[in-house]
Amino acid sequence: MSLQISSKAQDLKDRVADFMETHVIPAENDYFGYVEGARDRWTIPPIIEELKAKAKAEGLWNLWCPYPDYGAGLNNLDYAPLAEMMGRSIIGPEVFNCNAPDTGNMEVLMKYGTDAQKEQWLTPLLAGEMRSAFCMTEPAVASSDATNVEASIVRDGDDYVLNGHKWWSTGAPDPRCEILIFMGKNDPSAPKHIQQSMILVPMDTPGVTLTRPLQVFGDDDAPHGHAEMLFENVRVPAANMLLGEGRGFEIAQGRLGPGRIHHCMRLIGSAQRALEMMITRAKSRVAFGKPISDQGVVRQQIAMSVCEIEQARLLAMAAADKMDREGNKEARDLIAMAKIVVPQMAQTVIDRAIQVHGAGGLSQDYQLARLFAYARTIRLADGPDEVHQDALARQWLKKF
Amino acid sequence: MSLQISSKAQDLKDRVADFMETHVIPAENDYFGYVEGARDRWTIPPIIEELKAKAKAEGLWNLWCPYPDYGAGLNNLDYAPLAEMMGRSIIGPEVFNCNAPDTGNMEVLMKYGTDAQKEQWLTPLLAGEMRSAFCMTEPAVASSDATNVEASIVRDGDDYVLNGHKWWSTGAPDPRCEILIFMGKNDPSAPKHIQQSMILVPMDTPGVTLTRPLQVFGDDDAPHGHAEMLFENVRVPAANMLLGEGRGFEIAQGRLGPGRIHHCMRLIGSAQRALEMMITRAKSRVAFGKPISDQGVVRQQIAMSVCEIEQARLLAMAAADKMDREGNKEARDLIAMAKIVVPQMAQTVIDRAIQVHGAGGLSQDYQLARLFAYARTIRLADGPDEVHQDALARQWLKKF
Amino acid sequence: MSLQISSKAQDLKDRVADFMETHVIPAENDYFGYVEGARDRWTIPPIIEELKAKAKAEGLWNLWCPYPDYGAGLNNLDYAPLAEMMGRSIIGPEVFNCNAPDTGNMEVLMKYGTDAQKEQWLTPLLAGEMRSAFCMTEPAVASSDATNVEASIVRDGDDYVLNGHKWWSTGAPDPRCEILIFMGKNDPSAPKHIQQSMILVPMDTPGVTLTRPLQVFGDDDAPHGHAEMLFENVRVPAANMLLGEGRGFEIAQGRLGPGRIHHCMRLIGSAQRALEMMITRAKSRVAFGKPISDQGVVRQQIAMSVCEIEQARLLAMAAADKMDREGNKEARDLIAMAKIVVPQMAQTVIDRAIQVHGAGGLSQDYQLARLFAYARTIRLADGPDEVHQDALARQWLKKF
Amino acid sequence: MSLQISSKAQDLKDRVADFMETHVIPAENDYFGYVEGARDRWTIPPIIEELKAKAKAEGLWNLWCPYPDYGAGLNNLDYAPLAEMMGRSIIGPEVFNCNAPDTGNMEVLMKYGTDAQKEQWLTPLLAGEMRSAFCMTEPAVASSDATNVEASIVRDGDDYVLNGHKWWSTGAPDPRCEILIFMGKNDPSAPKHIQQSMILVPMDTPGVTLTRPLQVFGDDDAPHGHAEMLFENVRVPAANMLLGEGRGFEIAQGRLGPGRIHHCMRLIGSAQRALEMMITRAKSRVAFGKPISDQGVVRQQIAMSVCEIEQARLLAMAAADKMDREGNKEARDLIAMAKIVVPQMAQTVIDRAIQVHGAGGLSQDYQLARLFAYARTIRLADGPDEVHQDALARQWLKKF
Repeated sequence: MSLQISSKAQDLKDRVADFMETHVIPAENDYFGYVEGARDRWTIPPIIEELKAKAKAEGLWNLWCPYPDYGAGLNNLDYAPLAEMMGRSIIGPEVFNCNAPDTGNMEVLMKYGTDAQKEQWLTPLLAGEMRSAFCMTEPAVASSDATNVEASIVRDGDDYVLNGHKWWSTGAPDPRCEILIFMGKNDPSAPKHIQQSMILVPMDTPGVTLTRPLQVFGDDDAPHGHAEMLFENVRVPAANMLLGEGRGFEIAQGRLGPGRIHHCMRLIGSAQRALEMMITRAKSRVAFGKPISDQGVVRQQIAMSVCEIEQARLLAMAAADKMDREGNKEARDLIAMAKIVVPQMAQTVIDRAIQVHGAGGLSQDYQLARLFAYARTIRLADGPDEVHQDALARQWLKKF
Repeated sequence: MSLQISSKAQDLKDRVADFMETHVIPAENDYFGYVEGARDRWTIPPIIEELKAKAKAEGLWNLWCPYPDYGAGLNNLDYAPLAEMMGRSIIGPEVFNCNAPDTGNMEVLMKYGTDAQKEQWLTPLLAGEMRSAFCMTEPAVASSDATNVEASIVRDGDDYVLNGHKWWSTGAPDPRCEILIFMGKNDPSAPKHIQQSMILVPMDTPGVTLTRPLQVFGDDDAPHGHAEMLFENVRVPAANMLLGEGRGFEIAQGRLGPGRIHHCMRLIGSAQRALEMMITRAKSRVAFGKPISDQGVVRQQIAMSVCEIEQARLLAMAAADKMDREGNKEARDLIAMAKIVVPQMAQTVIDRAIQVHGAGGLSQDYQLARLFAYARTIRLADGPDEVHQDALARQWLKKF
Repeated sequence: MSLQISSKAQDLKDRVADFMETHVIPAENDYFGYVEGARDRWTIPPIIEELKAKAKAEGLWNLWCPYPDYGAGLNNLDYAPLAEMMGRSIIGPEVFNCNAPDTGNMEVLMKYGTDAQKEQWLTPLLAGEMRSAFCMTEPAVASSDATNVEASIVRDGDDYVLNGHKWWSTGAPDPRCEILIFMGKNDPSAPKHIQQSMILVPMDTPGVTLTRPLQVFGDDDAPHGHAEMLFENVRVPAANMLLGEGRGFEIAQGRLGPGRIHHCMRLIGSAQRALEMMITRAKSRVAFGKPISDQGVVRQQIAMSVCEIEQARLLAMAAADKMDREGNKEARDLIAMAKIVVPQMAQTVIDRAIQVHGAGGLSQDYQLARLFAYARTIRLADGPDEVHQDALARQWLKKF
Repeated sequence: MSLQISSKAQDLKDRVADFMETHVIPAENDYFGYVEGARDRWTIPPIIEELKAKAKAEGLWNLWCPYPDYGAGLNNLDYAPLAEMMGRSIIGPEVFNCNAPDTGNMEVLMKYGTDAQKEQWLTPLLAGEMRSAFCMTEPAVASSDATNVEASIVRDGDDYVLNGHKWWSTGAPDPRCEILIFMGKNDPSAPKHIQQSMILVPMDTPGVTLTRPLQVFGDDDAPHGHAEMLFENVRVPAANMLLGEGRGFEIAQGRLGPGRIHHCMRLIGSAQRALEMMITRAKSRVAFGKPISDQGVVRQQIAMSVCEIEQARLLAMAAADKMDREGNKEARDLIAMAKIVVPQMAQTVIDRAIQVHGAGGLSQDYQLARLFAYARTIRLADGPDEVHQDALARQWLKKF
């Protein structure tokens, strides 16, 4: 194990950090104020496209992408500190074209897409000109167990016909979203893990209905959002199939490893920012005649946050390093550990920061409530805490 | 100590429980759907007025009020299980005219109001025809320390002139809100706890500006909301003063004891409902081939929730009982304990229930996210956890 | 529910509290110093017999006993505060003849013993002239599941012949221990819960071997101790059988309810004393120029301990009250809650008190280490936390 | 940062791991059984000297020592996995001459000792022929604040005369202990951090009294132990002074950094062994018809322990790495983090392992109780958790 990042990554990290501090953080109020004041909340604030253009111009673009042909070509360890920097703001990742679920969708296209699929969808996604969504979880079943998926993908001549009720399709309400990856069963009679397929569905295909945006703690996360969607006799060409019938679970597995660790890296940034805000606030706010930072309890919360963030950061880096050296499969335990530890840690640290900020910490004036919701969500997304805990324990029970 | 509630209260509890189950819980989707779909979110869903009328007709009205001349005349212990029942739904308390901050404001008027003040504002508040807000905390200072308040109340002839910047004025954006209780300093040179006054301010007084609604985790809590407000040279008659100049801190103290314990009682109901939802969900949801309730970890979370809720309930009842027998001042330690324990307990239990519900638990489809936000807010409202912990410890340090 | 104790109990509580403060607490150093300095650690310090005589003379004797013919005749709720007082010292319960496992054993004899059995063993136990042990758990099996017991009780003419390997027979190494209650299977082919019997075994019966004293964190708990024991072809008269063959599980169940709640009551006293010691210490100890009590973190620990103890106390009282009103079976959930909550609470509070005392808190100079070991042990004794959590959750899953 | 250990260290780690597994772990029962059965508990079990000789013969000796002239010459990062292996057993470190407080005392002699001091005491300590103790903390004052030390060191002609009351002098009761490092004030009127000196005191100097062995949870930790000691007009030659008058605090600071991180490394090994024992036990123990490992709650405890240990290990390694690269002063924050996190983590993990082992887990039959006591002690030794938390927070408050 070596947790030494390359000098190239170190340089990129400094530049991303600087860009975040100089351009992104100061734009947050503009961004969210625009959405708040818009007649239609599902409109893109111009500032984000300006930031994207600037980041692209500076070469801070597609940094997540491990394939040099398509992006920065950094390995996971090198990407870790960059993702952490981006994660300091809810709007950070998009600025650098490094936001979920587009990164995962792009990777699927890079790894499994045909040339035609790549040209039509990967190219504009890489350029930040289009967005995408991933339609997997369903309201009717416990999606923590991916084999529960009930949507169907049925071959009919040169097409596939899709039916299903999906939700939490993050990014689907975004007006720029043009392509969906849809997971469904093409053969419910096949062995459990080869019943599923994934297929590309253009957003404007007849039969695709965006029923409503879902909220997280009452926040609709506009203008990206999380959609509930109906797929009713949606017909797409057979050429839209990804990798082949029955390969859906396999694609999902390959997609989730990096996705999970990217979320963790970003959440470390979220927690770190919350900690810094907590410190700044504690020093400036006076109660009962002295700064809050003079209260031992606040100092203890700062200290524990420092310890927990540093441990989480090291763990995520260790997972990234093992992914790079031995592959995602060998790194499975460390990825699970990071997925178990980091979102809960971030939730806890941000909750403390909120407490130090008083009621304002819960409001739209600070970014803490948004970061809290992000952390809370990731305790469920890509597998709830409990599923990863159980899987990890089962691995370890085999070891001794 | 006896935690035996009276037979009258027992009967009321059964009726409130039945009313909640039969009328209020089933109306939640209607209520929130109305707000969601309204052109103007600050419009009152008709269902709530229907429910109020029905509750009033059934005599389930102003149950919170300890004075028989004005309401049910129950003591705190007897009110505890009723408030718990109401707290099972975010919209529950209003149905019975038992919602904050109106209850606290009504109590202030009952205890300290002149006959004219009572007639003008208490009567319609008691009838549920008007709503009110309480303008105390300010964005510029740490309001956990009430002596930090900077707003001013200056005598000018037969009037007082008010200036100040307030926020978290809960209920002020409600279109039915007509009266505010405003806290400010009339004499910054006086001893620390007699600098403040409270005064009644009609909502439509010139100079009163509702700047914007504040959000909690992105939720604006429409149609009641939490306002940021500006008071610029607001002129009100001297007759609007409550109790007298310099008595503001005294009123605040008297108002907060019952207010805090009412919040606790309601949050016990919130947590209890979350527990019941967790149980129901765990039994019906299947993952990895069996109901989630077959997972030991879920059962442990249920068991710990049962224990924590029951302990919190007993603590809140013990505090109520002591308030009844020995007065709020003697019950100070127990009130502080309840205020420290209950909101954190409720946040934890609801968080577990969310986890068992999967991502849906965070959405508008279940009430969990709203209850979570309520619990989280009360960890800050009426004094943050840390302030109560410190005050409690200081009392105990004197004991031994 | 009423948590009002009787005036008789209130009076006894005051007298026990006074006795503890005046006689028992000051005798601790004498007691443990005697054991430490004794040539044979399994010798009874004279002070304990003096204290017993004094308590007996004052009528503070067998207060635990709910049957007026044999003892104080208090119900569980009335006994709660008395047991709490006794639990302030490891040597407290014995002084009042209220110590485990003798109380449980006496209750078994009262409820199920023949006249002859009572005369021979109950009478001297009630007089404090003899001690007893309970031989149930076995090193070879998980005794959290009582049906795992492998020891055998085989009828042979007018006798039973016993074989088995037992451990954690608390009190067996006490030189005054003369009688054992032995649990074993008389019919392994019977239905699961009627395979077991309990039988009385005089300590000096041939074949009974006290293999060695077990330690808890290295402490042998002399002069009472916890024995590992071998029973090899131990022959006792058939008249020693309790209640009848196959009734062992039934007796165990009846014995455990009160036993568990008594442990909880005592542990509340242990935690309360630790809290008081923590407070006293924090006020008197100076670090970095001020008393430790000036540190906010210490005050927070005090406050949280106050809250946790009070909640635990109310829970144990609520369980006791329900046992009194509706019987042990109906009170099962509340007993389980208390058993889950109280030992862990006590362990946590005492751990904090140790931390405030510095390394001395771990030593023999304070009673904290002994109380910690007691609390930690009870998280396993009479069913580990996890077993009670699971049983409680299963009950609640049936409710909704 | 690179957490890559050298190939030399990797090889040593494998050899130490093998030695522990083959020789040390199997010798634990022999070792502790010898002490238990000895007429005088303060006698050295022969097995330990045999193990030491074997380890020395295999070149596994003084591995802790960073100076190639005296020992293995490994840096902190390289030593981390070795110390972890040793920490798997309470008797592990001594086998490799890597036990506290001797390592710290040897380092003091290496860094600050005169040639004569080295020859007389360092040489036999390095050879494992003698043991030493460190006399710093005092019962009368809060020693978490080292400036509280009240013992005196007064120059008198060619001698110093020492007076003081010390305790927790670990290793002093060991019959092989021949030399003490004594901390006291030589000039109470000097600035706060140069009042103290450290001086060498042969054990047999007149006036040195070992008052009694202190216990931790009732365990006297024989045959090494922790002594309470009296120094009454103890006269030692001036040549015994270390470094010079007023340099005591400086020596203490230099001594503590590596000492703290060594404790952390060892405790990671303790926790790791507890985890492995927990896993093995869970698989083999049957309750309610299935192995305990089939219980989800046990699996969750295993998973959380895996996560917490791995995070703690990475943190300790990161601290070690920074000590190596930038020096102990620059690594101060990371050392503090490790000291805050690791002992509490170990206590928690071992507590879980005890719970899975049932009552046996508290007994002398498993090593868990001893490892628990070690972890609990280190939460106080070398500065209690709270002191490090506060110091860490103060550093971070300066950063932003």
